[in-house]
This record gives sequence, structure tokens and C-alpha cells, in this order.
Amino acid sequence: MIINNETRANILIDSLPYIQKYNGKIVVVKYGGNAMTDEKLKQAVMSDIVLLTLVGIKIVLVHGGGPEINDMLKRIGKKSEFINGLRYTDEETVDVVQMVLAGKVNKDLVSLLHRNKGKALGLCGLDGNMIVCEQLDKSFGFVGEIKKINSDIINNTLDNGYIPVISTVGTDEKGQVYNINADTAAARIAAELGAENLILMTDIKGLLENKDDETTLIKSVGVSEVPYLKKQGIIQGGMIPKIDCCVEAVRRGVKKSIIIDGRIPHSILIELFTSEGAGTMIS
Amino acid sequence: MIINNETRANILIDSLPYIQKYNGKIVVVKYGGNAMTDEKLKQAVMSDIVLLTLVGIKIVLVHGGGPEINDMLKRIGKKSEFINGLRYTDEETVDVVQMVLAGKVNKDLVSLLHRNKGKALGLCGLDGNMIVCEQLDKSFGFVGEIKKINSDIINNTLDNGYIPVISTVGTDEKGQVYNINADTAAARIAAELGAENLILMTDIKGLLENKDDETTLIKSVGVSEVPYLKKQGIIQGGMIPKIDCCVEAVRRGVKKSIIIDGRIPHSILIELFTSEGAGTMIS
Amino acid sequence: MIINNETRANILIDSLPYIQKYNGKIVVVKYGGNAMTDEKLKQAVMSDIVLLTLVGIKIVLVHGGGPEINDMLKRIGKKSEFINGLRYTDEETVDVVQMVLAGKVNKDLVSLLHRNKGKALGLCGLDGNMIVCEQLDKSFGFVGEIKKINSDIINNTLDNGYIPVISTVGTDEKGQVYNINADTAAARIAAELGAENLILMTDIKGLLENKDDETTLIKSVGVSEVPYLKKQGIIQGGMIPKIDCCVEAVRRGVKKSIIIDGRIPHSILIELFTSEGAGTMIS
Amino acid sequence: MIINNETRANILIDSLPYIQKYNGKIVVVKYGGNAMTDEKLKQAVMSDIVLLTLVGIKIVLVHGGGPEINDMLKRIGKKSEFINGLRYTDEETVDVVQMVLAGKVNKDLVSLLHRNKGKALGLCGLDGNMIVCEQLDKSFGFVGEIKKINSDIINNTLDNGYIPVISTVGTDEKGQVYNINADTAAARIAAELGAENLILMTDIKGLLENKDDETTLIKSVGVSEVPYLKKQGIIQGGMIPKIDCCVEAVRRGVKKSIIIDGRIPHSILIELFTSEGAGTMIS
Amino acid sequence: MIINNETRANILIDSLPYIQKYNGKIVVVKYGGNAMTDEKLKQAVMSDIVLLTLVGIKIVLVHGGGPEINDMLKRIGKKSEFINGLRYTDEETVDVVQMVLAGKVNKDLVSLLHRNKGKALGLCGLDGNMIVCEQLDKSFGFVGEIKKINSDIINNTLDNGYIPVISTVGTDEKGQVYNINADTAAARIAAELGAENLILMTDIKGLLENKDDETTLIKSVGVSEVPYLKKQGIIQGGMIPKIDCCVEAVRRGVKKSIIIDGRIPHSILIELFTSEGAGTMIS
Amino acid sequence: MIINNETRANILIDSLPYIQKYNGKIVVVKYGGNAMTDEKLKQAVMSDIVLLTLVGIKIVLVHGGGPEINDMLKRIGKKSEFINGLRYTDEETVDVVQMVLAGKVNKDLVSLLHRNKGKALGLCGLDGNMIVCEQLDKSFGFVGEIKKINSDIINNTLDNGYIPVISTVGTDEKGQVYNINADTAAARIAAELGAENLILMTDIKGLLENKDDETTLIKSVGVSEVPYLKKQGIIQGGMIPKIDCCVEAVRRGVKKSIIIDGRIPHSILIELFTSEGAGTMIS
Repeated sequence: MIINNETRANILIDSLPYIQKYNGKIVVVKYGGNAMTDEKLKQAVMSDIVLLTLVGIKIVLVHGGGPEINDMLKRIGKKSEFINGLRYTDEETVDVVQMVLAGKVNKDLVSLLHRNKGKALGLCGLDGNMIVCEQLDKSFGFVGEIKKINSDIINNTLDNGYIPVISTVGTDEKGQVYNINADTAAARIAAELGAENLILMTDIKGLLENKDDETTLIKSVGVSEVPYLKKQGIIQGGMIPKIDCCVEAVRRGVKKSIIIDGRIPHSILIELFTSEGAGTMIS
Repeated sequence: MIINNETRANILIDSLPYIQKYNGKIVVVKYGGNAMTDEKLKQAVMSDIVLLTLVGIKIVLVHGGGPEINDMLKRIGKKSEFINGLRYTDEETVDVVQMVLAGKVNKDLVSLLHRNKGKALGLCGLDGNMIVCEQLDKSFGFVGEIKKINSDIINNTLDNGYIPVISTVGTDEKGQVYNINADTAAARIAAELGAENLILMTDIKGLLENKDDETTLIKSVGVSEVPYLKKQGIIQGGMIPKIDCCVEAVRRGVKKSIIIDGRIPHSILIELFTSEGAGTMIS
Repeated sequence: MIINNETRANILIDSLPYIQKYNGKIVVVKYGGNAMTDEKLKQAVMSDIVLLTLVGIKIVLVHGGGPEINDMLKRIGKKSEFINGLRYTDEETVDVVQMVLAGKVNKDLVSLLHRNKGKALGLCGLDGNMIVCEQLDKSFGFVGEIKKINSDIINNTLDNGYIPVISTVGTDEKGQVYNINADTAAARIAAELGAENLILMTDIKGLLENKDDETTLIKSVGVSEVPYLKKQGIIQGGMIPKIDCCVEAVRRGVKKSIIIDGRIPHSILIELFTSEGAGTMIS
Repeated sequence: MIINNETRANILIDSLPYIQKYNGKIVVVKYGGNAMTDEKLKQAVMSDIVLLTLVGIKIVLVHGGGPEINDMLKRIGKKSEFINGLRYTDEETVDVVQMVLAGKVNKDLVSLLHRNKGKALGLCGLDGNMIVCEQLDKSFGFVGEIKKINSDIINNTLDNGYIPVISTVGTDEKGQVYNINADTAAARIAAELGAENLILMTDIKGLLENKDDETTLIKSVGVSEVPYLKKQGIIQGGMIPKIDCCVEAVRRGVKKSIIIDGRIPHSILIELFTSEGAGTMIS
Repeated sequence: MIINNETRANILIDSLPYIQKYNGKIVVVKYGGNAMTDEKLKQAVMSDIVLLTLVGIKIVLVHGGGPEINDMLKRIGKKSEFINGLRYTDEETVDVVQMVLAGKVNKDLVSLLHRNKGKALGLCGLDGNMIVCEQLDKSFGFVGEIKKINSDIINNTLDNGYIPVISTVGTDEKGQVYNINADTAAARIAAELGAENLILMTDIKGLLENKDDETTLIKSVGVSEVPYLKKQGIIQGGMIPKIDCCVEAVRRGVKKSIIIDGRIPHSILIELFTSEGAGTMIS
Repeated sequence: MIINNETRANILIDSLPYIQKYNGKIVVVKYGGNAMTDEKLKQAVMSDIVLLTLVGIKIVLVHGGGPEINDMLKRIGKKSEFINGLRYTDEETVDVVQMVLAGKVNKDLVSLLHRNKGKALGLCGLDGNMIVCEQLDKSFGFVGEIKKINSDIINNTLDNGYIPVISTVGTDEKGQVYNINADTAAARIAAELGAENLILMTDIKGLLENKDDETTLIKSVGVSEVPYLKKQGIIQGGMIPKIDCCVEAVRRGVKKSIIIDGRIPHSILIELFTSEGAGTMIS
């Protein structure tokens, strides 16, 4: 489709009220899934983030990295084990998690943002003692439950003009490292920063009335409707912890949590800069 | 034409390198002609300016107001006289010019920017002793030639987060008010502020190789080519003072001066945010 | 009278406690009447204001401009109409009011302050959306009632070291311009700025016990005495709205409101810098 | 003489150009002689200084204290000895000098300025290592010659809004204390601070053409004329070191040095705020 | 004893938790007794203070000077009189007190700190109107009771990077000077500054269970135990006012007051940087 | 050895001139060898760094991690290859290097500093585009040669009060990651930051006259003596690149480079805080 300059200008102008709305606000993006593995989608996310930063929105990028962790564990001949959907994390595994997330995935994202003329700084929960946690349950090994977020280092990073890119490992008071669920960490960080929005990128359309029919997308859910929707079985399976994170963030003061479809290019931009948005909003 | 969200996002992303280029820079826009009388064009200019401000570009708006002055002079029963294209300005006329420009045109623009959620402040050359001038030539009456621009008040306005909207009347040391050509004033202000660009909005396509054929637009002219183009008669008539302003600004340190076609909606945005630009650039 | 240097020095020293008292404080002066039309009085006011600014008092100058408006209306062949002392303001009139106040009277004062080595900036209620109003009553046309004062732009102006000179036109949310009574606007601005004093310059001696005898000046009135004085007929006629403005300002937190006699040269200085003051104080 | 309010106001207005001239500038006053012993004169100096501070002039007060030192020496049964007009200063004497100047004279002035609603801080050359000196000549004992002025502590005092009151004792690198001539110290401090004026208060009218005739006051002397005036015997006796201090200050960058008659009340104010000034100016 | 470098390093490392504890905190030291007269002890105190300042602790030094005052009174042939342990202070005595404390003792300490590469500023209660007092009781003459501490000047001094050295004379509203007990003044200053610690240097071991046996040192006393200890006669004699000062400071918000033995070199450092401390702590 | 408190205090006081010397200065420490693998030495280094930070020295910690890299390569079944002492670095190896250094070694050090009550932030050359490099030589694979150090992010980290801990991987303009020699990177970073000292921790005593006799330590070498010492064979083998780094840093403006023996506990503290120092100094 050839688009002439006047149309281009009109489209830019259409974004004006959204830029005004988010100017100076913090938006925490949990980055993961296809959007992180597909090269084209990845590039789209990077340019979205650089653009949003330039128009005065403070983006905090929290990432996961399951596939890279699995891959590395395989290379050292270790099998990934999962208990109720949570990775069983022994001493050796938590070392690999830290190394892969904070050393590889994180720093590669930082580098990619610089290739897109952004400025970024890679952090993990150990920097500035950012994520303080304790063991969730002995049966999962070194999986952590967040006790406290020290957000100073994130705010300093934003104030210095860098995009904070965050790996979700944390430590307890003795310095033991724990693996932490990235959705949960993103929700807690968003709350601690007083973020405007929490955006969770997933590989689904959003919450569906009928989980087999993408046309039945539920665009907006109130926090108070969640128990009913769970009872109805509409919120079910993998959707439960996602929605719970969203609810947790809203309860702690974040204005809106949104589950968006990371398989669509520029879904973050579409969510923030169009009236329709892109997925299911919890508020 | 229906444009889907992905296309919208791509168009926003296309603007990224331009936003990066102009971020934190000053652009002086001389606003006049049809873009100021046609309501639709006017609205487009206002939203362009608010958008540019939001993405970190410091816009300074310098305006004329010939038609409104003529209209007011007619209402008080005074005929507009012109000598070599310059308005003959007696005591009574210079009063009307000041009143119409600084009191009506200027403040209406300020109000319109606020209606578009911008923040603006209306200045004239008397505020902060901004434009110091003396009489250009007795035969024109109170038409002023600029001696000095005190740009502190403009910089303060930008630093406080307001768009400066400027009427081009000035005073000499005794406080006598003079009418000043808005193109010239815009060029001098741009130079004094160390602006990145000076944009002159006109009612023509730009500089044309053949003045009767809009397809012969000359997109770019070097300062050194100007004398030759004058000799060739390509720069002629009303184009001569416009091009001279552009050259003056570039000579005093402005990176680029551009003559754009104000009859096209969003021509400022098109000029700054597309690779083709919109008119004739002097650099 | 020849005054020797020692006497001069003593007089300067006499002003010391007053300078200490007002140092760093805001004083809003409503400027109008003879003090604005008589050239000698006008010059005295300008030098008073520049002096007060230099000794660390933050003067905000709010002005009217009835005679200039009447004159301009006459020149365009329009008759001034008054209903209950308020100018009936149709569309054409409000345009003239804005033009004359914000473009002529205001900027001429700014220029005059600069001739006296002050630094000034001319504002009207449209700048920075300062005066937000709505229609007072349909029968008066576009006469506005103040809903909100956005004082940021005034504080910025003071912080940048300029004397704010303010024309009292305002807008409603749709951008319709209204004429606003300058006394009322001065009172509201003084309250919003947390001013120390509101000074209303008038063409009378002050509040008189016997309105025909200037020796019966009442020097000080408590806010609570006002209803009684109205009932007694001592506050009557044109004095009623003046006193009401003073009371309104005091009620909203201004320390003192003073009605002074603008026909006396340097009455502002005399009010602020002598023990007797110059007129009637409401506190 | 009864002075009406209008005359008072006119006199205040007359000071306007002088306030504008000195606003934000540093003026170093060497305080001594009758102005320091006569209670009425003393009070006049204090109120002058507080007033000047309030109108934005940064006063630095350097004081002597010969009579108080003599008095104290007498009380401990020690005779004051002078060699070529300089006090012979043995170990015991320098102790008394330090004690009397920095402990008594200095702090009493600080207290007096506070009684006049000023804010002051008493310093001596030992504070912040302000005056670094070495022995002038063994024959005078502990009389110091200035090697370096560390003016940071004075600038900090001014920036914090206090009037610095300075006693002129200094130390060498080993911490030995020296008595330092107050005129000389004032001149060097003025130079180091980049002061606008150095004012030396004395008990004479100024430099006289005929030393026995006060009507022959020389109002202004150029630095280059000084050698000739010395040769002529017009600059002679105690006037020589005073004029030399003035010349030294001007040579090191102070705009004007002035010798004023401290016997006249408010002579500082008269010097700074009238066109005639009060004494002899060296520039 | 020869100490190798590794041992030295270990000792430095041992101080780490103490430096962390006091970093950025204010500690007020009342300096007096042997530590002020013995040259070796004096030098140890000076280097302690400079070191503590360098590691980020804000030391405020409050000093007495009894012996120097007695000595000076003797030299002018005046006998020191004491009533209930308080010096009877007539007009002449208070003059000497001010002179000796603020002019000699104070400035000599300032100079000594500079010799140790510290930066210091000598203040007394007259500077910045710091200590406001009134007469304690006519029978003692000009002995003052503190009414108010204006701590701005102390905070400014700390912020500018200087060690404040304070003589404890004060004034009443009329400017009459009073002699003030240094322990009391230190306690009030500590309270006003929100100090972490108040340290009183004395010539005793601390509070002793048996006053004749230094091995019976009481290391820590709670504020609530004080009345009982007084009743038991354990707190008795000269210890009573010292302990009262400590209690007063703690009651007004100081974390801990400590009475230390100034006869031991580096007792301040030992108190702050070892686990045992050095004396009796009241908290 | 039992050390009494007075001796402790004296040792603290001995450090005073060194603290004064380095206060506010930057010291870059290249951390490696035994000091990084031996737990006791490691703990000593961490406490040294936290102490130095607390006394106002700005430590920048640059680390290597050869053993951990070798270990990881072994776990994924890859053999470490070295060409002329440089690791041959293929695509897979550079990935492991980045992951182990930036993800594991770096963040573990950050965590350990926090356990010691320090505040730290882990950076690598990708953060803020800090280390820009290109391929050194194809034969080594992805081993980089530094082209540019962007030190903004390090300065921001210091200004925010965190100890920067730096892994030495870098990128070229296309984002290809390279392994960079840590000694070289430390030297370049020290130069770019204008550091006072560069300290290289090694597993040798320093430069020895006779390499087999530790008593022949050369304490100080001038940059100009280096060529001669190389010719003499005194600088030889692994010492050559170390000394070259030191020379490079000094040439680029670092005051002193020091090779210290990391096998001695607290060698950094001994180097900075004793007169003997600890190794060989190049200046």
C-alpha cells in the first residue's frame, strides 16, 4: 500500500492524544514469548521501545528467557524439570539461569537497543540489591518469592536517560540467588515504580470468552469481575497466573495492566497509541 | 482509505530517525499566508506544533497578520498604502499594527494552541526588550530595521515549557514602536537562538525552475548558487526577499532554511518527518 | 526645597523597616484611572514599580484600559453601552477589548517599564490559560466570571526576573474570549499567588466617612465591619464593588487590601514605605 | 525640617539609578576611626550596611580596632609601641590583638548588625585559612605581609546571605599569627573578590589640595596622577599609605577606590547613592 | 610495638562498620579539660576530628576555656569568683569571656585544624544570632540561660564543608552578652541539629559505681535509671550537671550522649570506632 | 597479637594523609588471579573496596574471569585454545565469555559487595555502548581491540553512589560481541576517567630484578626506563603486557599505575594507605 505524506501526517497527528496521555509516565513491559524469539518481531519491539522513549514515555523492560535457559541446560547435559509449571531449580540450575538471563539475554537486548539508537543499561535483581526474596517453597528449589523491591537503581537509570533492561533473579539476605517468575517480578516492579501501565506480552490473543475462538476476545475486565470469570472457567490454565499478576499490579496502584498479543508486530505501540488497544485490559 | 493498526505503527516507526534528529533542537516557524486564514489548514498547523513540541522539538512560532491589519485599518477608515511592497506605516498605522498583531492575532494563536492541549505564551518585540530596531528609511514611516535580538525571554519561555508565539513589532531606544517584516524577524531570531531550521510558510510550491510549472520544483539550493539563480531570473519577484531571509539565517549559523507550501495540510510535519520534505531547502 | 545629603540618607534609612517587611513578598497592583492617563503620574508609577522590584518586592501589575477601549470603539463607529455599570460586550466589542488591552495598553506599559530600566513581560488571561472563566450573565454579553486562575505562568515570569503586566481578558473551555473586570481579576490573582498586599489604584481619596469631605478618610476597615458600613451608606455607589474585591482577596488569604489615591504621585511607594500609608486599608 | 511623603518618595526614586548600578555587586568597606567609636555614627553605619544589603549590594565589612587594642594592652600593663607608624607587635601583643579584634570588636559588630535586623557572620584571617601571610620585617615583630587571600569562605558567607565581618589577623604556614594592617587587607580582599568598590572610612574630608582647607577637596584622582601628587606634596603623611592601598586595589581590578569622611553620618550611603559622592575617588 | 601492614589493614577494616554507622551523621563534641591544655592530647583530638570529617562524619566542636579566662582575668587584676560552681560574671568579666573564648581559644582551634589539613570556621553565639538567651539569675550576673538555638549558620557551615568550632557566649534581644555553660550549650545544639551523638570530654573515667575505684566504670545508663542513681549517691557532685546535660540531649532527640575520658589520647576515635567505646553512655 | 585501643587509634590516624590524598579521586582496580579465587582473599578485597568507597575514594572494579570461562567451556564440552597467550575465541566461545563474565562473575561480585554493605552495579562493555571495539586480528577470532570508551555510564554510576563493576566484553558497530583483555580495558578506562591510579592485581610480588628472588623487588619504575628494562630481560614473559598496560595508562594521563601482589590480604589497602605501598609502581 502506498501511503502519501498527508496520510502519514494524519496518522502521526492521531497519536497526539496518546503521547500527551503517557508523557512522563512509566510503563513496565514484560517481554517474552514469540516476540523475543522471532527476529522480525524482536526488531519491531526494539524500535517501539526506542520510539516510546523518545516521545517522553519511560519504558522499563523486564524480560524472561526460558528457551535460552533450556538450551544452555541441554548443552551442559542437564534436563529441565517442571513442577506445577514452575522450573525445579537446583544449585547448578540457578547458576545457569543467572548466567543466561543476566549475561546473555539481558546484555544482547541492551546491545540491540543501542543498534536502534536507544540508550540502555542491563540490570538484574542483584544490582543495587534490587530484588530481595526468599525461598518460595523447598519443593521448587531455588525459586524465589519477592519480599522487597529496591527501585532506586531503576529510577536512577531512568533519570540518567537509559532504558532499564531487567533480568529477574534475586537474592536473599545471605546472598543466595533465586530464579524469579518474570511476570510476577514485572508486576511488583511496576507497583513499586508507581507505573501507569503494566504490559504483559504473550503468545495469545488475550482473554477469550471461548478459548478456541479468537473473535471472542474480552477487551476489558474489572478487578472485581476476576473471581467470577475464574469460576466460569473463562480464566483458566496458563491464564490464571497472568491475570493474577495483572490484578496484583492494579491492587498495588498501577493504573492498568494489559495482556497483549506479542505475535502481532508493534503490538506495544498499537496498545498505547490506538483507541482499540491490543488485547485484554485489567483495571 | 482504511489504514490498519500495523500500518499505523509502521508509519510511526518511520518517523523515528527524524524525531532522533530534531530532539532537543530549536525550529523557528514563520507562520503566514493561507495556512493562517484557512480554518482547516490552521488547525493542522496547530496540531503539528503541539506534536513536535511533545516529541522534544522546541518550536518558536513567528507570525505575520497582513489581512487582519488591512481589515482593521479599513474599519477605522484608513487606507493601506504600500511602497515597493512595504506597508507605509504612519503613527496611527503602527498603533493598529501593534494592537492587531500583539493583541489579537498573537493571543488568538496562543488560545488555539491551548485548545489543542499545548502550552503557549504570546510575546512581541517589546516584551523583555526583545526586538531592538531603528527606522529603516524615512520614506516608509515606522518600519523598523532590526539592530539587536535579546533572546533571553524566548529561551526562558522554552525552558519553562511554553511555546513562544511572537509578533514582530519592535522599539528603538526611545520606545518608538516599529512594524517589522515577519520573515526578516524570524530569520534573525532563528540565528540568535542557534536554531536547527528556519521554516518559512508561503502560498507557493517553493522555488520553481519555471515559475508557471509546479512540477519544476527545485528541492535544494546552496547559498553560493543564489546569485546565479537571481541572475537567471529563476529567483525573482516576491521570491527574492524570502530567499534573502533564508540565506541570511544560514549565514548567521542556522543549519537549514526551508520555504514550504503552507497550502498543503501538515506541511511542517511533512517537511521535518519525511525524507522528501516539502518545498525548497537553502543550506 | 533643597534637601541635603544627610537628610536624603536619613529618608532612605527610614524606608529600611518597610523594605525588610516586604522583601521577597508579592504585591499585586491594580493600575487604572488618572494614574494611567496623566503622563506625570504614569511615569511616577513606573519608577515606583521598578524601585520596588529592585529592593526585592515582587510586583504584579494588573491593568484596566476603559478610556482606550472607548476611544477605539468610537473610531470603528461603535457606541459603548453600559448595563448597571458593566460594559455590554458583544462579539465585536470583546475583540476590540482584547486587542486594545493585550496589544496596546499592555505592551505600551511593558515598553515603558523597559525605558525605566525595568524588565517586564506582557501577559493576558489567554497566555498559559491563565484566566479560565464562563459567561457571567447573558444580558451583559461576553463579560466573564472567573472560574480558575492558573498562576504558573505568573510565577515563572517572577522567577525569571520579569515584572508580569497582565490584561484581564480570559477564555472559557471552548476558547471564547470574555472581558473581565480588572479589580476582580486582580483580587483573584492576588489570592492565588498568596500575595502580601492587593493595592487598588483609584481616583478618590479612599473610603470617606462623609463622601463630600476628604478630611474624613477612614484609614482602616476590618472585614467584619463592612456590612455595617454598607448599611450606614458609608460604603456606597462605586465604592461597593471596590470594597467587595478587597474583602474577597482578604477572605482568600491576602494579608491586606488597600484602596489608594492614584492622583497623588508615588502613592504606591507612600503606601508601602511610610507609616501613614495612603488610603483605606481592609484587613 | 518636615518632609512630606511626596518628597520622601522622590528621594527614594532618586536612588533608583544607583541601586541599579550596584545591584549584585560586591563593595568592600574598611570601617574605622570616629565612625567606629562615636555611637551615633556607628549606628548610622550599621543601618547603611543593612539597607545596602537589602537592596542587593553585597557588603563585606573589614574593620580595625586600634583604640580597643591600646585599651586592653593598657589594662594588662603593656605599653603600645609604634615604629614608623606600625605597632611593634611582640608575642604577647599579637595575642591581645587577635583576642580584641576577633573576639570583641568583630563579634560586637556582628551582634549590632543583628540588632538592626541584618544577618552577619564574624570571620578573621584564620577562618578557612583566609589570610596567609609572612613576617613583614623582623623589626616590627609579628606584623604580617599578605601572601594569599583564600576568599572561598567570604563568598560562601555572602552566598548564604550573611554579611561577612572580617578581623585582619592572619597566619603563616606554621600557624604563627600576625597582625595585619586593615587598609591593606581590605584592598587585597576587594581585589580577590573582584569587588566593584573599595571604600576606606577615615577621619578626614578626603585628599585636599591644601591640607588645611577642607574646601579644596580633590574629588577624583586617576591612578596615573598619584606619583605627581606625591611629588607635589599633596599626597603626604598618613595619606600616603591610604592612597597606596587604593591604587593597589584598582591595579588588581577593583573598579573604584574611595576615601570617605567617616565623621559624616551615612557617608557610605551618600557615597554610593548620590551623584556627588563623599570624598576622594581613585580610579 | 612494630605492627606489620597486614595488621594495619585489618585494623582499618575493623573500623568499617563504625564508619558505615556514622556516615553522614552529626556528632557534637564538647571539648574541654586536659584534652585542651595538654599539647599531645590536643593534637590527638585535632587529628581525630579531621579524620572523622574525612570519613563523612559531621563533627561540630563546642569548646570551653576556663583556664584561659582565669589567666586573662588575672592579667587585668581581676579575681575569678564562683557561686555554686558558676562563675560570677560582671560586665567586665563577660567582656573578657567573650574576648578570650571567641577571639583566642576559638580561632586558635580553627588555625590548628587547618594545620592538620582540616577546614574550619570559628563561630560564637552572636554569629547569625545563633544562641539567644536571657539572664539565668541576677545573683550570677551575666550568666545566660538558653532560650533558642538558631542552627542555620551551623548547618550552612557544615554544608560548605567546614568544621564549625563554637564558643558559647550568647545574647538577649537587646544585644547584652551572656556567658553560657559549654556543656549545656553543646547539649542544646546537639538537640537542635538532630545529632546522632553528643560527646562530653571530661577529666574522669566516666560514671563510677565507686567514685574512688576506676575499675567500677558504669558503661551504660538508661535515662530512666538516672533518678535512682542520683538517689543512691552514685551520680553526685560535678557529675550531676554533666549527666543532666546528657539526659536533656537524649530527651530532645539525640540518640546517645557519652561522657568520655579526655585524658586518654584519641578517646573520641576510640568511642566512635570500637565496640567497647570509651566512658559512660546515656541513652 | 592483642592490639589495644590507643594503638588502633594511632593506626587509623596514620591513614589520614592517604585518605586526604585520594579523597574524591578515581582509582581503577583490575581484579583477578588468586585474589578472585581464594575465598579469604576475595573477602579482603571486598571489604577493602567498601572501606575505600566510604572514605571518599571512587573505586571502579574491572574484573577478568579466566578460570570460570574455562570451567564453563569444559562443561559444554569445548576445549580452550590459546594462541600466543590469547584465547582463540570463536562464535560459541564469545557467547560463553559474555555469559560467564557479565552474567555470573560480575553479578556475583555485585552481590558480594552488597553483603559487605556496599552499593554496586554490574556493567559490561555493551551497557551504554561503553566499550566500542573491532577485531584485533582474524587469527584470534572474536578478540577485540578497543576503539573508544564511552565513560558516561561509569560516571553516572559513580555519581549515583554505586561502585561500578565492569566485565570487559565489547561490541563493534554492527553489534558483534568481542572478548577483550581485562588489563588493557582497565588501562583504557582509567585513562578515559582521568583516574588517579590504576592498580593491577596479579599473582606475583611485582617486577623483580632477579625473577627467582622475591627480595629483589623493584619498587618504582619510570616510564622512560621501561625500554631499557625490557632489553635487559628484567621485564620479560607475562610481565611485558602488564607493564605495557601500565605505561599506556600513564601515557594517557593516569598519575600512577601499580602492579600489586594479590596473594597478600588487603594489598589494595596497603598500597593506597601505607608509605611503602605493595608492589611495583610505574609513573
